[in-house]
Amino acid sequence: MSELRFNPITGDWVILATERARRPEDFTRKQPRPPLPRHVTTCPFCPGNEQATVTEKLRLDDDQGNWLVRVVDNKFAALSPGAPEVTEPASQIQPRLPGYGHHEVIIEGPAHDLTTAQLPPSQVRLILEAYRRRFLSFFEDRRIAHVILYKNHGSGAGTSLEHPHSQIVAMPMVPGQVSGRRNIGRQFQRGLEDCLHCRLIEAELADGGRLVSRNRSFVAFVPYAALSAFHLWIYPLAHQSCFATLSEEGFADLAEILREVLARLYHGLDNPDFNYVIRSAAPTPGGTPGPEFHWYLSVVPRLALAAGFELGTGMFINTGLPEASAAFLRAVRLPA
Amino acid sequence: MSELRFNPITGDWVILATERARRPEDFTRKQPRPPLPRHVTTCPFCPGNEQATVTEKLRLDDDQGNWLVRVVDNKFAALSPGAPEVTEPASQIQPRLPGYGHHEVIIEGPAHDLTTAQLPPSQVRLILEAYRRRFLSFFEDRRIAHVILYKNHGSGAGTSLEHPHSQIVAMPMVPGQVSGRRNIGRQFQRGLEDCLHCRLIEAELADGGRLVSRNRSFVAFVPYAALSAFHLWIYPLAHQSCFATLSEEGFADLAEILREVLARLYHGLDNPDFNYVIRSAAPTPGGTPGPEFHWYLSVVPRLALAAGFELGTGMFINTGLPEASAAFLRAVRLPA
Repeated sequence: MSELRFNPITGDWVILATERARRPEDFTRKQPRPPLPRHVTTCPFCPGNEQATVTEKLRLDDDQGNWLVRVVDNKFAALSPGAPEVTEPASQIQPRLPGYGHHEVIIEGPAHDLTTAQLPPSQVRLILEAYRRRFLSFFEDRRIAHVILYKNHGSGAGTSLEHPHSQIVAMPMVPGQVSGRRNIGRQFQRGLEDCLHCRLIEAELADGGRLVSRNRSFVAFVPYAALSAFHLWIYPLAHQSCFATLSEEGFADLAEILREVLARLYHGLDNPDFNYVIRSAAPTPGGTPGPEFHWYLSVVPRLALAAGFELGTGMFINTGLPEASAAFLRAVRLPA
Repeated sequence: MSELRFNPITGDWVILATERARRPEDFTRKQPRPPLPRHVTTCPFCPGNEQATVTEKLRLDDDQGNWLVRVVDNKFAALSPGAPEVTEPASQIQPRLPGYGHHEVIIEGPAHDLTTAQLPPSQVRLILEAYRRRFLSFFEDRRIAHVILYKNHGSGAGTSLEHPHSQIVAMPMVPGQVSGRRNIGRQFQRGLEDCLHCRLIEAELADGGRLVSRNRSFVAFVPYAALSAFHLWIYPLAHQSCFATLSEEGFADLAEILREVLARLYHGLDNPDFNYVIRSAAPTPGGTPGPEFHWYLSVVPRLALAAGFELGTGMFINTGLPEASAAFLRAVRLPA
């Protein structure tokens, strides 16, 4: 018998289709991904080809002056800082805005073949440092209302570029989905003087059945109403609305748990395609916790395709039981 | 320069990424789809294999008693009428419901190889008749709150079954996305005593640049804030909240325009993968127009993959300008 579960954070129901449920191991990649070379002469992100990405926005080097992380303009930027100011009056029915914003690529390391799961923690920490710096710099631009950080890994997750990278987009408005979710949190908070996300974390820690990992500052779990098999949320245990105001210790802990969770997917499911997204509010004055949101990182392995049902309802049909996904990931043996 | 456009019906912004825009003809299928046989011995939906789908819910025959359309239970139903009644009190943080509902497949004809674009209008009318009857019958069940009709065409649109078919799901709650959109319409209506959708149709007819087809009862256009290249909406010109309360004449007109629009995609883009969805409110007492919604059919060709950006924002990046998509589709030459 299938079950409908409600996700209080998104306001969406999910169908857990146990009639067509698959065992966790059935989601393992069917055809092994061919191994990648360490360096590719024609790759625009490999060392030696820096002239392919001239507008370098940030560069983090090692002691010898070799770059470890670079941030460059996206060559096919969806939004651009050259867009004009808004001048025309808005149409009531069909408003539009110039495509103002920023769209950059974070090159996650010099190695063409090493994804997050295989990098040393110090390198993951550097990637997060690049995220932090670019995120904060975008909010110095008063025309920016929202910033999203995301990674597409593998062709099934929407990228054709093999070299490990992630992206950051700064936009002049808050997306409807994002403001809708904030409203849910705000309504809960007004009623109960409490953070909905904090309550949810408490409930997941108390239940324990969907936990995947936990460290000093973070917890990783498969959400109760997961969108798909192995869908994961990484939450800071302490209430905090903006990801960029993490402490130094917090960033080290985030690097550790992100790397571990992605390694569990990598080794457990043979390097699946996935997306991850950092959902964060804007920086708060003085780095205060910020009442209205609780930031988190969401990992969505791309093991099924959204079809007409998902388009027409916004709901997902999940064929992997969250409790089974979590137990499987907990049991993955990681290389020492 | 890219442009942000607001979709007043969905409440979402779309990025029209003209920097990476492609010409309409660049979206044509790269590798031709291999031709299908008329009949496949192992296909559960082909005539002669009716024993593979025993729970026949509806059957529409020709004069000789051969079936033209069959509706059967989905073998891998996401929801089921055998689910128990709700008995446990709802959890405040993580509510759930038994997976009650109905999930059926509409087999769109005996021919394995003929998709909507190639069928005679009378056959498309019969498919719509099956939609209408099953839709109305589900709302006789007092536990059903919402019904969605959709079609997945091609593996990129989420189906592995070649034989032309569509699906209908009846569920015990209204999805958050659907109620969110109804709220938008309701707020507009309360303010202006008018239907937001009716106003939008007026604006599209007046502009003309995104129209693809029009007949006595319907108009088809590429929305101003289309999600993707060749995204299409088919709207009844007269205000009506429920698709099933169309007149006989209205159904004939819907069959005609749906077939024509899908034929323009089929011939213009070499049979692309697509989904379509009918977004409709529940039947109204006595078939009255119903104030709170204006039903429509949305066609989404699957020419790009949603990635981290779309997951994290609910926004889409469209690389096909709506006006160019519409002009291209208008110019497609249809076989006589």
